Amino acid sequence: MKYLFVLLLAGVTANAQIKKEQLNLMPWPQNVVINDGNFTLTKNFKVNVSGNPNPRIFGGVTRFLRRLDGRTGIFFEQGFVTKLNEVPTAELQINCNKAGKIGLYEDESYNLDIKSNKITINASSDLGALHGLETLLQILQNNNNSFYFPVSQISDFPRFTWRGLMIDAARHFQPVDVIKRNIDALAAMKMNVFHWHLVDDQGWRIETKKHPKLIELASDGLYYTQEEIRNIVKYADERGILIVPEIDVPGHGSAILTAYPEIGSKVITLTGGTSEKNIQGTAIATYGIERNAGIFSPTLDPSNPKTYQILSELFDEVCPLFPGAYFHIGGDENEGKDWDANPKIQAFKKKHNLKTNHELQTYFTMQLAPMLKKHGKQLMGWEEILTKDLSKEAIVHSWRGPNEGMPAGQSLVDAVKKGYKTVLSNGYYIDLMYSVTDHYLNDPMPKGANLTADEKARILGGEATMWTELTTSNTIDSRVWPRTAAIAERLWSPEDVVDVANMRKRLDNVSFRLEELGLTHIRNKAVILRNVANNQDIKLLEEFTNVSEPLKGYTRNKGGTEYQMYSPFTLFADACTPDAKDSLAFNDAVSQYLANKTPENKAKVAAFFNNWIALNKGLVELGKNAPLVQPILPLAKKLSDASQELLLVLDNKSTLKAEDLKSLIEQCNTKDHADVELSVYPSLKKLI
Amino acid sequence: MKYLFVLLLAGVTANAQIKKEQLNLMPWPQNVVINDGNFTLTKNFKVNVSGNPNPRIFGGVTRFLRRLDGRTGIFFEQGFVTKLNEVPTAELQINCNKAGKIGLYEDESYNLDIKSNKITINASSDLGALHGLETLLQILQNNNNSFYFPVSQISDFPRFTWRGLMIDAARHFQPVDVIKRNIDALAAMKMNVFHWHLVDDQGWRIETKKHPKLIELASDGLYYTQEEIRNIVKYADERGILIVPEIDVPGHGSAILTAYPEIGSKVITLTGGTSEKNIQGTAIATYGIERNAGIFSPTLDPSNPKTYQILSELFDEVCPLFPGAYFHIGGDENEGKDWDANPKIQAFKKKHNLKTNHELQTYFTMQLAPMLKKHGKQLMGWEEILTKDLSKEAIVHSWRGPNEGMPAGQSLVDAVKKGYKTVLSNGYYIDLMYSVTDHYLNDPMPKGANLTADEKARILGGEATMWTELTTSNTIDSRVWPRTAAIAERLWSPEDVVDVANMRKRLDNVSFRLEELGLTHIRNKAVILRNVANNQDIKLLEEFTNVSEPLKGYTRNKGGTEYQMYSPFTLFADACTPDAKDSLAFNDAVSQYLANKTPENKAKVAAFFNNWIALNKGLVELGKNAPLVQPILPLAKKLSDASQELLLVLDNKSTLKAEDLKSLIEQCNTKDHADVELSVYPSLKKLI
Repeated sequence: MKYLFVLLLAGVTANAQIKKEQLNLMPWPQNVVINDGNFTLTKNFKVNVSGNPNPRIFGGVTRFLRRLDGRTGIFFEQGFVTKLNEVPTAELQINCNKAGKIGLYEDESYNLDIKSNKITINASSDLGALHGLETLLQILQNNNNSFYFPVSQISDFPRFTWRGLMIDAARHFQPVDVIKRNIDALAAMKMNVFHWHLVDDQGWRIETKKHPKLIELASDGLYYTQEEIRNIVKYADERGILIVPEIDVPGHGSAILTAYPEIGSKVITLTGGTSEKNIQGTAIATYGIERNAGIFSPTLDPSNPKTYQILSELFDEVCPLFPGAYFHIGGDENEGKDWDANPKIQAFKKKHNLKTNHELQTYFTMQLAPMLKKHGKQLMGWEEILTKDLSKEAIVHSWRGPNEGMPAGQSLVDAVKKGYKTVLSNGYYIDLMYSVTDHYLNDPMPKGANLTADEKARILGGEATMWTELTTSNTIDSRVWPRTAAIAERLWSPEDVVDVANMRKRLDNVSFRLEELGLTHIRNKAVILRNVANNQDIKLLEEFTNVSEPLKGYTRNKGGTEYQMYSPFTLFADACTPDAKDSLAFNDAVSQYLANKTPENKAKVAAFFNNWIALNKGLVELGKNAPLVQPILPLAKKLSDASQELLLVLDNKSTLKAEDLKSLIEQCNTKDHADVELSVYPSLKKLI
Repeated sequence: MKYLFVLLLAGVTANAQIKKEQLNLMPWPQNVVINDGNFTLTKNFKVNVSGNPNPRIFGGVTRFLRRLDGRTGIFFEQGFVTKLNEVPTAELQINCNKAGKIGLYEDESYNLDIKSNKITINASSDLGALHGLETLLQILQNNNNSFYFPVSQISDFPRFTWRGLMIDAARHFQPVDVIKRNIDALAAMKMNVFHWHLVDDQGWRIETKKHPKLIELASDGLYYTQEEIRNIVKYADERGILIVPEIDVPGHGSAILTAYPEIGSKVITLTGGTSEKNIQGTAIATYGIERNAGIFSPTLDPSNPKTYQILSELFDEVCPLFPGAYFHIGGDENEGKDWDANPKIQAFKKKHNLKTNHELQTYFTMQLAPMLKKHGKQLMGWEEILTKDLSKEAIVHSWRGPNEGMPAGQSLVDAVKKGYKTVLSNGYYIDLMYSVTDHYLNDPMPKGANLTADEKARILGGEATMWTELTTSNTIDSRVWPRTAAIAERLWSPEDVVDVANMRKRLDNVSFRLEELGLTHIRNKAVILRNVANNQDIKLLEEFTNVSEPLKGYTRNKGGTEYQMYSPFTLFADACTPDAKDSLAFNDAVSQYLANKTPENKAKVAAFFNNWIALNKGLVELGKNAPLVQPILPLAKKLSDASQELLLVLDNKSTLKAEDLKSLIEQCNTKDHADVELSVYPSLKKLI
């Protein structure tokens, strides 16, 4: 209350008229019109809801008020919104025609109309209204002493109906609060699917009462209780998010088989005994929770009726926890090694006329479809499930690309041409530490594929995938956010919204605003750096993160065995992210200088070099009391050495031979230190 | 693995011999001996457990390994410790004689013996062994490239058996992850009691199946499910922590009476009707969840049998969730206004010969004792429960002091003299924003009270109390930590460990280390400041927090009504803490200068002033795009104005009259801006 008082005393400053391109909306709406004038926020600001919405709108509006007062410091009189038509004279009027249904194809459109004394959100369903509230929060402006919304009209709706994020809670378990805050962030970015990867070689994460061995033996005590799952499903529903659970079978089976080795495919040949009694035969193998990363051979036995019995019982217990219409059964990366080596499985293949392991896997998959259908669920799986016998109701999740020796998104085109619905994840693998630009420009709708309208309609959308081999609950937010917001824009906004520079500018603001939802992507970086610095000042380490990016692809964890799931992820690389802050700025400075070698342009480039030389010296000092700083010192020295020489190059004073200069710069092209690479290396190279 | 490789290549630097006074142990152990030599950590480091411990030790050891590898970046080969005598040759040997029992009077002692090639923890119980592991983590040292433990012998045990923290989850609900990380911090500080304040005027926070109205009507949907409670109890047990739940009755009753108005004490006199039909009589009042802070009149009716029926049913449901031997029933701040105004209650008092409301409350309390005893629980209550008829089994929780018009800790002496056990909280009210020094020097054992040994033995210990009228889940850690560690030391360490400067030095290190347990006291400060700065650089705001402290006592929330429970706590004051960082440093500089007016000493003082002048200018700039910065600008200006004049005073160039100078300094003694005060004001005054 007192803050408002201060603001009023300070008087009203004229607000400069905001321009459309200054707005930090993301995903960018379908239509935005800005007009003259503003709606200024005061403590009297109130919200009223009318129409026939699902009651989730009330929680949504109350959270909206809480976020708006948190940002503005205004003590709104209205604390809670709990029923329809509570304040008919309220300045913000929300009207919804109908209760939104969580799932695909629901009408999520909204119209937001801001006048200088009234704001209206009209939406077909409360899901659209929730999107409208997020847009309203994003359009908030301020001058020096007040907050206001610019007079404007926005009409908006999503381009794709499936706008998802997958989180892998199996490799590194991700506690309930991590899941919840990421669901909040999804809702803020108008995404609508949370795909929960709950089972993999490294752990089974679902409480099951019928099969308690799975949590007793295969979870390290890290799992979601059924109550927690129900609670998260409700939490997601309240925010307009569909949850798609995944139990990955028949491959990635180490955890399941740790509890139930009898349904595994591996056989052990027994030989031995004595000269009198010769032992020959086979026995089932035993399994353990996998601690490394990679593709492993433990695979369920598709020829064993008990496999289907256990899976059926598991689906009977797990399906009712998730009201949504889709269930993901994985199906990826089954190499079939244990199948090939198992005579019983080979006989089974022959008997059922299954020519390849791929056909055998389809046989397996098709056994699961009715188990899911019984609970009203459609089967979804990674693209390996796609074969000629697969039911047309299944959804094919396209993920492979050049990394896996396939053309990018090939399976997506294959699937829709064969009549399957599909979701694209190839190009959205955010765990691989590539630039946000790559993900942003990756469109689910393939260019030049010559698809019919029906085929196009079967491309449901896309999904960012956050695998967690190298990611703990402390670092996951920094791997997911803000990058996933760019993917959200690709999936929501018009196809022609592709201005990367503009996206980056808006993404910076999105990143800041995500903090109010509890996301830890910014704050936890400082925590890691304080540990690396051994409680010394982290300023220099922060600066070094501005030129350092984690190794990309799967190169950080060579062979999948350098890091175990229990290894420390408190290292410098864990504080770094793709799109290191200074890379673009330095590259711009270099480009400007090369285009126009003025003293000013030279000075800008030189400033970077002088800073990196000082940084190296400072880090050496810091390292005197910080063992965890040691691994980055060789890298800092290489950058400093190159900088010193390039300063001479700028002044035409370098006496190095061309090849020696090249080799000095090439030193910066290294992956040998601290699991990071120097993101400015390509720009350095341009200078020689 | 690769890090270790780097370390080995870097070679071994001779470690300077550490001295006892350089250690950052907290609470300081009973006996510490440091000898020459070190135990150097390598990836081969392993732990072995022997004896007869409770299995909680295995989780404790595994967490110890995870924290140690997180700090050091060493990839230990040992991932998990799951059973006795797993690695008999391990370098760290832990031996426990018996399984520790969670509760009071358990033997928590341990002996830690660090030799250059072997470490031994011998403890009576696993609880002592867990304490020993915390000490080992605290004694970790490093040089530039390796981590080591100094050769030493520590024998240790607690001075008091009750070393607690209370968290109020009623005023502002505190989610499960907040509770868990605070339990981790308690264990790290060798504390052993978590007192969970679960019910107050502002909310009922326990799922009850028999009385669902309590969560439906009186929780705003913010409560702990029974499964969550069980899960937290288990979590606490695994860390050696006893949980003492509190249901505060008969006062602080707004939430309970929102669900069950029929057991409230307030009556409404009805008058009205028409001239033909006159209505006269009484009716029960209705209640609502309280949104303000303060002492309110809603009180349970002690004359109504239904009151006892409902409470009895609630205890039947809630008690089994908590295996501990104590249940706190509150009993504080019942003013009895509604009792005085209720004729039925007046008649009841007369009938039962209860002369005062205090006697009536004791009658009420004594009805609850058997309800708890039935579940094996002893009753505990705030000191108001202490009257002549109170059962000697009850524990009296001493809390009032000068703020409440009582001598500090008077009730503690009264209680033990009358034969009651008691726990001290007066002087440990960490929500009041007083200096850590005040809490640190507040000893549960009263000086000069002339107590017998038996009476002394009845002083069980003490408990920090974190009330949350002004504290959300985002700010609570910064109110509790690191300050509570100083209270932990008071309750654990020898009485004569009272060196404040030394405690402050160690507290800084404790604060840093608490981050690894997920505590957000440091990281969330930056989050709040980024919001205040509107995503501009927070450096200047951080500097201003170094001279700003939140208003103390209950002065921030005048009348308890400026802030509602849903008001924003995202303001500058919420980023500030007691013991602002520059206060002591500035005071030292001033004292040195006044004692010895050398140019160097003068320059040190002048540096502060010049910084504050620049700070003011910078904040004005920052404020141009940050409305939330405006409220602090008048304060920054006052400090700048005083600084400018005091620079002249230092040079004997001030031309101000003494009274004008005094009034300029006095401007800095204000509580009118942004809910903070300038912590350097007392030191400024010394200069004139």
